[in-house]
Amino acid sequence: MPSQFSSLLRYAVQPRRTSITSIADAARLRKCPSSLLTDPWRPLHSFAASPPMPSGSTASNPQMSFPCLDAVESRTQEIVSRSLTNGPEPSYTTGVHKEFTSKEPLLLDYGGRLKESTIAYETWGKMNADKSNVVLLHTGLSASSHARSNEDNPRLGWWEMFIGPGLALDTNRFHVICTNVLGGCYGSTGPASIDPADGKRYATRFPILTMSDMVRAQFRLLDALGVGKLMASVGASMGGMQSLAAGVLYPDRIGRIVSISGCARSHPYSIALRHAQRQVLMADTNWNRGFYYDKVPPHVGMKLARQIATVTYRSGPEWEQRFGRQRADPSRPPALCPDFLIETYLDHAGEKFCLEYDANSLLYVSKAMDLFDLGIANQDSIRELRQKNKHRLLEGYSSDSEACSLSLPRVPYIEQQSNKDSSQTASGHDDAAASDDLVLGLSPMRDIPALVLGVESDILFPAWQQREVVDTLRKAGNANVEHVELSQDVSLFGHDSFLLDVKNIGGSVKSFLEQ
Amino acid sequence: MPSQFSSLLRYAVQPRRTSITSIADAARLRKCPSSLLTDPWRPLHSFAASPPMPSGSTASNPQMSFPCLDAVESRTQEIVSRSLTNGPEPSYTTGVHKEFTSKEPLLLDYGGRLKESTIAYETWGKMNADKSNVVLLHTGLSASSHARSNEDNPRLGWWEMFIGPGLALDTNRFHVICTNVLGGCYGSTGPASIDPADGKRYATRFPILTMSDMVRAQFRLLDALGVGKLMASVGASMGGMQSLAAGVLYPDRIGRIVSISGCARSHPYSIALRHAQRQVLMADTNWNRGFYYDKVPPHVGMKLARQIATVTYRSGPEWEQRFGRQRADPSRPPALCPDFLIETYLDHAGEKFCLEYDANSLLYVSKAMDLFDLGIANQDSIRELRQKNKHRLLEGYSSDSEACSLSLPRVPYIEQQSNKDSSQTASGHDDAAASDDLVLGLSPMRDIPALVLGVESDILFPAWQQREVVDTLRKAGNANVEHVELSQDVSLFGHDSFLLDVKNIGGSVKSFLEQ
Repeated sequence: MPSQFSSLLRYAVQPRRTSITSIADAARLRKCPSSLLTDPWRPLHSFAASPPMPSGSTASNPQMSFPCLDAVESRTQEIVSRSLTNGPEPSYTTGVHKEFTSKEPLLLDYGGRLKESTIAYETWGKMNADKSNVVLLHTGLSASSHARSNEDNPRLGWWEMFIGPGLALDTNRFHVICTNVLGGCYGSTGPASIDPADGKRYATRFPILTMSDMVRAQFRLLDALGVGKLMASVGASMGGMQSLAAGVLYPDRIGRIVSISGCARSHPYSIALRHAQRQVLMADTNWNRGFYYDKVPPHVGMKLARQIATVTYRSGPEWEQRFGRQRADPSRPPALCPDFLIETYLDHAGEKFCLEYDANSLLYVSKAMDLFDLGIANQDSIRELRQKNKHRLLEGYSSDSEACSLSLPRVPYIEQQSNKDSSQTASGHDDAAASDDLVLGLSPMRDIPALVLGVESDILFPAWQQREVVDTLRKAGNANVEHVELSQDVSLFGHDSFLLDVKNIGGSVKSFLEQ
Repeated sequence: MPSQFSSLLRYAVQPRRTSITSIADAARLRKCPSSLLTDPWRPLHSFAASPPMPSGSTASNPQMSFPCLDAVESRTQEIVSRSLTNGPEPSYTTGVHKEFTSKEPLLLDYGGRLKESTIAYETWGKMNADKSNVVLLHTGLSASSHARSNEDNPRLGWWEMFIGPGLALDTNRFHVICTNVLGGCYGSTGPASIDPADGKRYATRFPILTMSDMVRAQFRLLDALGVGKLMASVGASMGGMQSLAAGVLYPDRIGRIVSISGCARSHPYSIALRHAQRQVLMADTNWNRGFYYDKVPPHVGMKLARQIATVTYRSGPEWEQRFGRQRADPSRPPALCPDFLIETYLDHAGEKFCLEYDANSLLYVSKAMDLFDLGIANQDSIRELRQKNKHRLLEGYSSDSEACSLSLPRVPYIEQQSNKDSSQTASGHDDAAASDDLVLGLSPMRDIPALVLGVESDILFPAWQQREVVDTLRKAGNANVEHVELSQDVSLFGHDSFLLDVKNIGGSVKSFLEQ
């Protein structure tokens, strides 16, 4: 066997100056004017990156092809040419809905202010005479008010199988209201809206918002509708957070609370997963720090972010059953572009979503989820902030130095054995101090019957978080807490169970509301 | 309370033609010549994207700032200017190592060919006279051969605490060899290497490779060193895959096998997680379809990919304890850039790695992990392929149409109740058919004593995968299989436990090897 040992130990420094292609070559290969390439450091902009095929055919192996990148590039081209013909893309919408606009300025938890705010909403079932049969349904991150089809909009809703005559939210009994959240892009005020102060879109001049801000905006709608007390507040995922936030903010105005696959505060793992999505999105140069509304939207970043999100929506065992190790086309050689069936599924999920939802809304609403913490320490500090910022609603709109300009610490994070600090707001879920913090925080809900639903296979909002809510409510003195946990035998659908499991999720909700 | 209902149902179409800024404005704000902005569709290239601040100070709220994007942009500038002064970045290296080059062409499982292949390696401890005390240590995805410091290279190695006199791999007893994998970038032949066929870097003309290809290249080194039979094959993570692959390929040349946090085949959840990393990396325009070696490397894509990877290396409960909901600077308002401590940790992990490893190596080695399947069906089909492609080693190097050009199916993936197809290669882990496939696949190892170690808190290589290996080996008739599973009480460090838990991981390995 011919072989050769390097005779001496040496540093593995390989020659770097050998160009693969000269600049002239590159220009030819990329089919663009060589003048554009005089600076070899100039990165290609996103839709001119045609493949730099090797010049000769003498290489050991063929060049890989990248159909997934070709697809992304044609998508960009398509957006550009459609826009040149028809003007920029239309706004995001899931169709006809009602809108309510409050002209009273809204102060947000972290000091932001909205001169006016619109909430998009839809309703199903009849409101009774004393308005005592209203169920407020809160949505997950990216959902619109269109939870179910109706006369005005026959398109299927995101909870189609759960709302209707005889269903989980029985429209023969209840008047169901679903809103698009503040910060969203389906009709409610969000980053894509016009700032009335200067007639320009907010973009990333939109203020940081919280679950409580969203809930306050919803209750303005209820005020306007003359609904004093809800029969029930119901929500899943982020909606489960809002449902609890509503219970804390307006305990006297809520009859029952349902929180499905939600939590009392976000834990670092779910923050990490959302962080990854935001970072990927913000790295898309088309995002342009939020100012893309009259340009090509950051569809690549959105596609990538949605793929990461999709990984967290289901469970490993479910994919094991559904996809296993099947390849999309086993007769073809493996590729770096999507290849296994699971990959084409993720790719498709990203593709479907990338122009369906506003990128800035994703950032702000996802951040609001991270900030969610019903512990008393956080509530107190927000209360203080709101007091301090009250004056801002009355003031004129002048330049303001309180930009959200958090910098990374100079000294990067260093691995430590334990940097737990009990003076900090709440950490470990089995931490007694943290638990007291939550018990005090959730105590306003002590007299509201609550149903808390969790799913064992959920990675994003793990079942221990719903157990935490249940234990906390009980410790706070609530004697009417029902807890349902779907084991892995019952549902492998992970976080998405709330969208799919009509029997177990829908059934539990129905019997709880009709007690 | 002043309010206004929209008087009619209406589509939520907002005016899109209102520009936030005129083109002239934009030019001024972005501090670049307005000529560059005459086409509003032209995306900004990555290092000129300074923030488009709002022109007036009349907005309701201040513009957010994005220190994380500023940091990325300065990093690019720094790379460019350093390179203009000193030439392109040096090759990736972890320092001095030995190298072995085989001049005999290597046929890869999927038909690729390498005219020659170099394997970088390091050794610790003395080889005994009959060369019977050799332990081959396999690495994880991104590790180099530098598992431990030594005279030639005092830098700490990735398994520093596990190799040495009296340690898990006891250098008083054993001669330990660690290699950089084929496809890697720390001295072994990989995408950054020069293709001897045309003198240019392989880049994405590097062929798809597999775990078995990596193992074959390692055994060429053992041949050259005159090592007939290993005392043991040891590896964790991807190294755990290789350790098993070696047992299947060369059962007569291995005395004992240790596989830590590995698996017998990749499951769709881990494929999905690696898919996300590859997609994010390939979306970086600086990646340039693999041809970046004389340009700015895709450091942004690498940073993002590493952050996603880092999410999968530890566990939720560990982060709950370590980070909780602590913010990096609680005195500052929340930000869309890293803000919670967990975010700064991920950001730092990405930052640290982004220029430490070759992007193309990441793609190829990560893909090889996806392709890993020791089931007999896969082994048979690879055997057939190798037979079919044998002739390629003898042939000249001409243009070849067998490019890896897998396209996405025309009809995208559609949600189905179950598309399990028993004729397909292996899926569910509790599937009897799949299990037979694995039992036959692993049967060559039936006489090799094996230690299989798993960690309950591991998300990437979940504990059921090690149980699968154990059950399969036992079913195949192996009476000497030891199984250790670290429960959550013992280790919260998830997949990373193999790097950290000297006592339990190291201790088990030591006692197994010294039986």
